[in-house]
Amino acid sequence: MSSIWGNKIKISIFGESHSNAIGGVFDGLPPGIKIDLDEIMVEMGRRAPGKSNLSTERSEGDIPEILSGYFNGYTTGTPLAFMIKNGNTRSKDYDELKNLMRPSHGDYTGNIRYSGYGDYRGGGHFSGRLTAPLVFMGSIAKQYLAEKKGILIASRVKSIGNIMDDGDECTYILDEEMLKSFKNKRLPTINSAKSIEMEEYILEAKKRGDSTGGVIQCVCLHVPVGLGSPIFESFESSLAHLLFSVPAVKGVEFGKGFDIAKLYGSQANDELYYDGEVVKNYTNNNGGIVGGITNGMPILFNVAVKPTPSIAKPQRTINIETGKDEVLNVKGRHDPCIIPRALPVVEACAALNIFDYLLQVEGLNNERYK
Amino acid sequence: MSSIWGNKIKISIFGESHSNAIGGVFDGLPPGIKIDLDEIMVEMGRRAPGKSNLSTERSEGDIPEILSGYFNGYTTGTPLAFMIKNGNTRSKDYDELKNLMRPSHGDYTGNIRYSGYGDYRGGGHFSGRLTAPLVFMGSIAKQYLAEKKGILIASRVKSIGNIMDDGDECTYILDEEMLKSFKNKRLPTINSAKSIEMEEYILEAKKRGDSTGGVIQCVCLHVPVGLGSPIFESFESSLAHLLFSVPAVKGVEFGKGFDIAKLYGSQANDELYYDGEVVKNYTNNNGGIVGGITNGMPILFNVAVKPTPSIAKPQRTINIETGKDEVLNVKGRHDPCIIPRALPVVEACAALNIFDYLLQVEGLNNERYK
Amino acid sequence: MSSIWGNKIKISIFGESHSNAIGGVFDGLPPGIKIDLDEIMVEMGRRAPGKSNLSTERSEGDIPEILSGYFNGYTTGTPLAFMIKNGNTRSKDYDELKNLMRPSHGDYTGNIRYSGYGDYRGGGHFSGRLTAPLVFMGSIAKQYLAEKKGILIASRVKSIGNIMDDGDECTYILDEEMLKSFKNKRLPTINSAKSIEMEEYILEAKKRGDSTGGVIQCVCLHVPVGLGSPIFESFESSLAHLLFSVPAVKGVEFGKGFDIAKLYGSQANDELYYDGEVVKNYTNNNGGIVGGITNGMPILFNVAVKPTPSIAKPQRTINIETGKDEVLNVKGRHDPCIIPRALPVVEACAALNIFDYLLQVEGLNNERYK
Amino acid sequence: MSSIWGNKIKISIFGESHSNAIGGVFDGLPPGIKIDLDEIMVEMGRRAPGKSNLSTERSEGDIPEILSGYFNGYTTGTPLAFMIKNGNTRSKDYDELKNLMRPSHGDYTGNIRYSGYGDYRGGGHFSGRLTAPLVFMGSIAKQYLAEKKGILIASRVKSIGNIMDDGDECTYILDEEMLKSFKNKRLPTINSAKSIEMEEYILEAKKRGDSTGGVIQCVCLHVPVGLGSPIFESFESSLAHLLFSVPAVKGVEFGKGFDIAKLYGSQANDELYYDGEVVKNYTNNNGGIVGGITNGMPILFNVAVKPTPSIAKPQRTINIETGKDEVLNVKGRHDPCIIPRALPVVEACAALNIFDYLLQVEGLNNERYK
Repeated sequence: MSSIWGNKIKISIFGESHSNAIGGVFDGLPPGIKIDLDEIMVEMGRRAPGKSNLSTERSEGDIPEILSGYFNGYTTGTPLAFMIKNGNTRSKDYDELKNLMRPSHGDYTGNIRYSGYGDYRGGGHFSGRLTAPLVFMGSIAKQYLAEKKGILIASRVKSIGNIMDDGDECTYILDEEMLKSFKNKRLPTINSAKSIEMEEYILEAKKRGDSTGGVIQCVCLHVPVGLGSPIFESFESSLAHLLFSVPAVKGVEFGKGFDIAKLYGSQANDELYYDGEVVKNYTNNNGGIVGGITNGMPILFNVAVKPTPSIAKPQRTINIETGKDEVLNVKGRHDPCIIPRALPVVEACAALNIFDYLLQVEGLNNERYK
Repeated sequence: MSSIWGNKIKISIFGESHSNAIGGVFDGLPPGIKIDLDEIMVEMGRRAPGKSNLSTERSEGDIPEILSGYFNGYTTGTPLAFMIKNGNTRSKDYDELKNLMRPSHGDYTGNIRYSGYGDYRGGGHFSGRLTAPLVFMGSIAKQYLAEKKGILIASRVKSIGNIMDDGDECTYILDEEMLKSFKNKRLPTINSAKSIEMEEYILEAKKRGDSTGGVIQCVCLHVPVGLGSPIFESFESSLAHLLFSVPAVKGVEFGKGFDIAKLYGSQANDELYYDGEVVKNYTNNNGGIVGGITNGMPILFNVAVKPTPSIAKPQRTINIETGKDEVLNVKGRHDPCIIPRALPVVEACAALNIFDYLLQVEGLNNERYK
Repeated sequence: MSSIWGNKIKISIFGESHSNAIGGVFDGLPPGIKIDLDEIMVEMGRRAPGKSNLSTERSEGDIPEILSGYFNGYTTGTPLAFMIKNGNTRSKDYDELKNLMRPSHGDYTGNIRYSGYGDYRGGGHFSGRLTAPLVFMGSIAKQYLAEKKGILIASRVKSIGNIMDDGDECTYILDEEMLKSFKNKRLPTINSAKSIEMEEYILEAKKRGDSTGGVIQCVCLHVPVGLGSPIFESFESSLAHLLFSVPAVKGVEFGKGFDIAKLYGSQANDELYYDGEVVKNYTNNNGGIVGGITNGMPILFNVAVKPTPSIAKPQRTINIETGKDEVLNVKGRHDPCIIPRALPVVEACAALNIFDYLLQVEGLNNERYK
Repeated sequence: MSSIWGNKIKISIFGESHSNAIGGVFDGLPPGIKIDLDEIMVEMGRRAPGKSNLSTERSEGDIPEILSGYFNGYTTGTPLAFMIKNGNTRSKDYDELKNLMRPSHGDYTGNIRYSGYGDYRGGGHFSGRLTAPLVFMGSIAKQYLAEKKGILIASRVKSIGNIMDDGDECTYILDEEMLKSFKNKRLPTINSAKSIEMEEYILEAKKRGDSTGGVIQCVCLHVPVGLGSPIFESFESSLAHLLFSVPAVKGVEFGKGFDIAKLYGSQANDELYYDGEVVKNYTNNNGGIVGGITNGMPILFNVAVKPTPSIAKPQRTINIETGKDEVLNVKGRHDPCIIPRALPVVEACAALNIFDYLLQVEGLNNERYK
């Protein structure tokens, strides 16, 4: 807890939507991790706005600059700091509305928490833009995990509004090729027809000045057995902690999640067997985590994302300055649905969480130590 | 992260089911909190086994002994350590089964995580018994919150298996009398007829040697506005962290949670208004938390609890010693449903989380300081 | 910071002099460390009072009971909690003096910090007795370091009052046999004649109802190169943090310490050379730590311990209840010099600090992981 | 521990001497602190090189840019990130010497710790330049402490080499005017004649291609009673932790420090009395801290700083590439004495430590909360 997350690694995020820059510090990295900057840009591009008619038309130009901790293509092992400058922001636009608290945004709660000193422009520290540093750091973790352990992390859109993708989340997703293909899709689904339905659903809401939410499912393959601990250091605890740090997330469930509560124990329990020398489960209702510790099955979790609170429709709210009720008409370009851009953010959380536990078990493993 | 939770307070839990004792350390407490030990025993009694035919018949006799940090009826402000001795445990019973990994228990993952050195008797450090220290510490937090801020924390059973209680979780529960009455019920519900249905459902499963899961809903009234922060210190992040530390929890959602993903923004947003000088929302779809910060509305969250993994039915599993598949027949007395005993645990998590953020804002407020 | 110390390990200490028990929790331990309980008792015996006329005649009977985290002779890897019960304490003795703030004790500062709710009996949480848990945990760390890495930790009395032992602290102490012999001596010195002088000095002060301070020097051999980091994770930072947690410590210096400030750079710098393939320094003015990181030379540091503040002589002080000045006459049996009992405490700090950094580099190294 | 320091505040520092930038993140700040940027520049100017013939002639142009957490002249309460760009650095100069490990620098230990991936140019993350962010953050803390509590923090040069300033460190320094004047002096001393002697001593060493060390004494006035706790959260522990994070610091002592070890208890104890309603001590041998907690007397501590390891004289060392011994001739402009520039760094540590404990007791005190 605090503005820093992690145990063996420590990550922190700073910035406001209209401050000079946003960025982060990635601390506790082992030295000698080769970083593929192009791959980081691919991940950040997945999160960036302005890429399709499903997201806001604003273009943010998220070009990260590494400030420290990186030398000759490798991590040095010292804190890796980076920033993304905030460009031509039209801050004036926000002065007009600064006293009207946008419903379901952090405007009112932030006003109290920060005693009116917060930077209200563009959502300030509450802006979804603050997930860009998370994607940046998650991409480094992903590269490490893929390189050292062959770990694959992917996500799909499980639902948008009432449109549900196919697939029972706890048994199937083991087709690695399909998982890999998700990354290049705006609305990755198992059933591609559902993807088209979802897109229409979003665009229809957009036309009405409204927005939609949805559920993201993330899967992690080839994660070693034995990461995490019972109680406060449970794999689920620290991952849920990260996921609820992402704006608009209102629910997190592992494996069958809320649906497991409907089953009998005899249905819910994941029985074990030997597949040669490898221990496996017949089912994966626990989503790859039992007793707070990974069990070698695919890690599976779902994340509920609420509809973007910025909508064009008029809304009732308060004026914090006058102390009166008013009607708010938000202008500007907003995401009708944040889900496509949230996919790499959710994957980043998964990667960072695995990375942290891996270092706990394996240590820094400096080549020259001893 | 680590075996310690909290920011301004630090709580830690130790113990195994059959070690000399379980217990905890509650650190960062302000001095001068009057502790009502009887009230703690009431809360611990709610969690204790052997109280009804809905839970295991084992009687644990959870008598906590305070070791330090408590003097003349008040907290001293130094670490408050306490323990609950483990009584006449029949450890021999466990030797027979120690190599058979019980499905959906921490047996296999714990064996890898602790390299075979873990105390396997009675589930060791994975035992649900480890939630007793959480209830103990939560009860102190609850007393403080009630006394200083008038905060009320209560929970009900939202569902058992497929039996759902009535009530839309995000608008109603403002009847304080009903909330207060929940504490004295085994299966507190809004619709008491549902409570009887749930009981029958559990007993029917018990008869078949099976178990059931369910969903708990917790509500916190009169929590001040302004607790929490965006990103890693969000109120939801730290609370979810705690909740996922509780064995058998597989899902956590705030406000409408996963259902909010089905709404349009215009339906989901909680519009604001002035009720005199107090800022309120017309709805509470966000469950009292926006932007990671409390907004003054009731805090509402749901917790999915999986069916008790210990069931009498035969199950397929592995023998970690022989490396062969076997069939497991668990004997002994187990909870057919853990939900009734989990209610005070969930409330404890809520209380501890509010307490921690309160200290961040208010400080220790020593009377003699300055 | 907080009542918990450590990064990869987390140690916490609880208790008051007259509470039910004192104790600690050692968290983050690798599973499978074989613990020699007799060896722990030897270390605790070095710290225990009543062993000679140099210390208080009170006998505390420090028998630690392990509560958790230990099974069949090995650490389990879960939190290892332990307690030492407080025996027949004559708490009444303290009521009389509870409002008279003993000079240079934590009475007055504790009264403010804990708003009068602190347990004043026997010094409460400020008691030197609280170092017993540190010795307990340090002994486990020592055993691990000796077994896995051959690390040897020893300490000597560098001075008592104005009596100085021989030896230039930064070049000599490489005689392992002498270092090992220190453990069995009450006042270990290089020059054994000095030891006798020191003893006389202490006894003479005792006779006059007075007390003496001194300086302890600790040395750690065979510590690997590469432990620590620059800035906030420097080896010196975390070790000094621990050492200043020990009551009565008022100064900490590494290598030549304050004396290095008198040298020119050309005298102070430790030049390097290859001794075969091993990198060594011609001198060790930096005490085995450069840039916050161990360099393979012996770790050397000095700790200044103030005279025991409890003395029989009358002292001027305040009565916190009446708000008036008074004269205090402390009765009871007190240590005329705490140095002999502080030696294992200082060594424990060194061991715990090395252990923590070792785990950072090496990880848990679970045998069954992967 | 870790690259982050603090409990209620969290500060982190990033950067290498020749990376794109150095900087830091100041987290946990209350909202609404008015920051005087000119005052920050004054403090940073005290630390900056190139200001006199006592320090290196290199000019670094330390212009900090605030990236976030600051709006309309006030802290917002969100993480305040800032950077100082690294200018026209002649990195090529360093390639030649990169395999020659400079004695008493972090070259060799860093090479092992970071497995050869560290940025060796200009000392990398070990560079004294990394203290600039500490001064930046310390200046914010100082402003807050002065404004809210009237706390005054100042330091003097207690010694350079063998030249000692006058003054018994534990009774006198209560002349606020003198303390305030220290800030504008290169070598602030009580006896100004000593200052001239020290200057000559430094310049004489410089002429010979050598360097000198010294001792800094810091004093903090008007610090409230009751900050800190016994054991791991002692005021001395966290401050010593910070001070040993500063490169070249090899010793820290509070009050009389190592000299207190020479006294009898009857001489060392600070007796108490009432000065009207205020509790005072007749002496201040404990340097304002007893039992780990501030007692209202001036906080006094000394810091031993070793001679700058970079000297022009030839030195024996190893070539890490060839595995052979060599002689090193360091060129370039180096500080003959770092003491004058270290004064604001030491004061920054004191300010940050007091600030952290103040927030623990007083909380964020948001104006709009409740």
